[in-house]
Amino acid sequence: MPAFNPLVETLTAPPIPHVQSWARAYSGACGPLIDLSQAVPGYAPHHDLLAALGQCASDPRLAGYGAIEGEPELRTAYAKHVAGLYGTSVHMGSVQITAGCNQAFTAALMAVASAGDAVLLTNPCYFNHETTLTMLGISANTVACKPELGFVPGAADIDTAITPKTKAVVLVSPNNPTGAVYPAELLCEIFDLCKRRGIWLILDETYRDFMDPLDLASGPMGREDWRENLIQLYSFSKSFCIPGHRLGAVTAGEAVIRQMAKVMDNLQICAPRAVQHAVAPLIPVLENWREQNRQEINRRASAMQSSIALVPGWKLNSIGAYFAFVRHPYPGRTSADVAQQLAKQLGLITLPGSYFGEELDDFLRLAFANVEVSPIQEACARLKSLT
Amino acid sequence: MPAFNPLVETLTAPPIPHVQSWARAYSGACGPLIDLSQAVPGYAPHHDLLAALGQCASDPRLAGYGAIEGEPELRTAYAKHVAGLYGTSVHMGSVQITAGCNQAFTAALMAVASAGDAVLLTNPCYFNHETTLTMLGISANTVACKPELGFVPGAADIDTAITPKTKAVVLVSPNNPTGAVYPAELLCEIFDLCKRRGIWLILDETYRDFMDPLDLASGPMGREDWRENLIQLYSFSKSFCIPGHRLGAVTAGEAVIRQMAKVMDNLQICAPRAVQHAVAPLIPVLENWREQNRQEINRRASAMQSSIALVPGWKLNSIGAYFAFVRHPYPGRTSADVAQQLAKQLGLITLPGSYFGEELDDFLRLAFANVEVSPIQEACARLKSLT
Ligand SMILES: Cc1ncc(COP(=O)(O)O)c(C=O)c1O
Ligand SMILES: Cc1ncc(COP(=O)(O)O)c(C=O)c1O
Repeated sequence: MPAFNPLVETLTAPPIPHVQSWARAYSGACGPLIDLSQAVPGYAPHHDLLAALGQCASDPRLAGYGAIEGEPELRTAYAKHVAGLYGTSVHMGSVQITAGCNQAFTAALMAVASAGDAVLLTNPCYFNHETTLTMLGISANTVACKPELGFVPGAADIDTAITPKTKAVVLVSPNNPTGAVYPAELLCEIFDLCKRRGIWLILDETYRDFMDPLDLASGPMGREDWRENLIQLYSFSKSFCIPGHRLGAVTAGEAVIRQMAKVMDNLQICAPRAVQHAVAPLIPVLENWREQNRQEINRRASAMQSSIALVPGWKLNSIGAYFAFVRHPYPGRTSADVAQQLAKQLGLITLPGSYFGEELDDFLRLAFANVEVSPIQEACARLKSLT
Repeated sequence: MPAFNPLVETLTAPPIPHVQSWARAYSGACGPLIDLSQAVPGYAPHHDLLAALGQCASDPRLAGYGAIEGEPELRTAYAKHVAGLYGTSVHMGSVQITAGCNQAFTAALMAVASAGDAVLLTNPCYFNHETTLTMLGISANTVACKPELGFVPGAADIDTAITPKTKAVVLVSPNNPTGAVYPAELLCEIFDLCKRRGIWLILDETYRDFMDPLDLASGPMGREDWRENLIQLYSFSKSFCIPGHRLGAVTAGEAVIRQMAKVMDNLQICAPRAVQHAVAPLIPVLENWREQNRQEINRRASAMQSSIALVPGWKLNSIGAYFAFVRHPYPGRTSADVAQQLAKQLGLITLPGSYFGEELDDFLRLAFANVEVSPIQEACARLKSLT
């Protein structure tokens, strides 16, 4: 057999199916499986959205190829939504619709960097950001986010970590895996330093709709000059509960969108169309529903926070949006080893801290959006049974 | 503003919207616009498929993330379909579902090559294959397909064009843009030489269902050792009339699929799910419908063939599947110049030969699947009015 691309061959297998496979050895002794591995909302999409999805998907007019940048209806509706959120002006020319936010990241990255370049990630980081860089031969430099500082990076550390090869800084806020929300002031400081250093700031806001209503307008997107070097990514997977339909968006200057459209044409021509038409008119309509979901996710976060506090030895290091990043009480054991034991023995699927970066073997990520308050409490009770 | 990736910045804008924009200057003087630019079927999907699409898209159980390799239902149904077509054994482990065939190509390519490597394309070639290579920093070497040989490449020429950097040979049969169908014997010869040279054969069969029923089992897929180095790509866009839903598939050895799944996870986690469930049970059910469409497309090909023969100076060089590749009677003028005139003056949108490779300025590609017999005749009558 001929050779594979070594950059891909040396990547480990996708993490989510891998950890889920551990649970196959679980006997059921502690009760039903509790899956805290994947960042998915545990509730169904709104019935109006389901109805619209059904209607649009069966519409023969939406069966043909669509515009590469996305359907004008969704680009317009999303631009208006973003403009409202950030108190800024955004038009459809600044929006590229993608098949989810992983694709938004890949396409944005390709528009600004190629093999041999470097991009600055945080440690910990979202694993697909790292594997995407690796697959493309782009070096991932990292800036440490320290537990004692709530896993928020320092602007000075970022400035130091930028080299002449660095084309972009990638930030995720609210963060995956730590849940940390970066203050608007810090984001502006990083935006400014990126501008000064002549590089892009790629800001993944997949979990934007689940943070406490902050003064978004004080962040970089509220700046007059945001188009200069900000590339903002969003996912409809979480807020609209439709990961299976694959929908994401990029907001950036029109010059960026023009480059991204060429990448998108190569990657997959256009995002699926029916879901774009289904979502577009419902963005304003489902605002209340999204707010209720935000509150429900916050209730789950509180349940996680208070329940884990009762488990001796376990320590909640940070929490926010969909995630709790916790320190397990088994120093010296790898996080993969601990996560594997929890899956096999307790029927509790989590992600090892080491999947998100270096020196994170003391941590596990618990994605609690997927389950209700009572299984969250039950999960913590199982952890207690082990100690 | 910071710099863009020069590999992307130097790409020209996506060709289809570009040529379609020329027609905005058309006055309507010759009658309604006739769009022969994009390879799309001009009829609607089957109503059973539309109904299934509607049902699956509104199913909350399909709203969550799906398996990276694709839904088991579709992988199984498609494997069975392929096994039947080629008289070989294929199981779901050999199938990766993608969001269309451009993504199938990108993911397959990334699994076997990276920046600095080379891949062998034909000249002419499908433009997105070339732009995808360029965007990734992979060199595109080409082997000439001569008009006098029906645009079919020679195995010896391919052998000569392979260098130590070549990781794969990419073939499209039935071909875009020429319509040429490569004989099964030639494909086997190229498969063998790729095997001998230790490289992959990537075979894009997007238009497979529109060629005259050939002895597919005599091609490389019918070989016992096809898994060794064949990567076969397919699109549901054309045969099932659903480009807007984005669905494609890769058939290859399980070792290839394992590498591709890592790429897919980065690119977009999984293909959209509803369409996978809608299509799976209908693959066998819609066999007759696909056969009727094949015959209809063949009628359009015949209409193109006989109508263009009546236009002085124009010469049909090859035809098949969705495409006629024709020589225009204006030597010395660029194909882009001619195509632009046809769009603006005659309301006839075609693609310039030069978009598909070197030294093709004498040619235009007419994608006739998009329109019925009478507009095809009308298009040729408009060409005649110009001469
Ligand atoms: C930070 C971050 N970005 C992107 C994604 C991908 O989301 P999508 O489903 O839109 O591709 C995720 C999903 O977990 C994520 O956590
Ligand atoms: C040869 C070839 N491959 C791939 C594609 C892309 O098809 P899809 O819509 O499945 O991405 C096309 C579409 O025109 C094509 O002609």
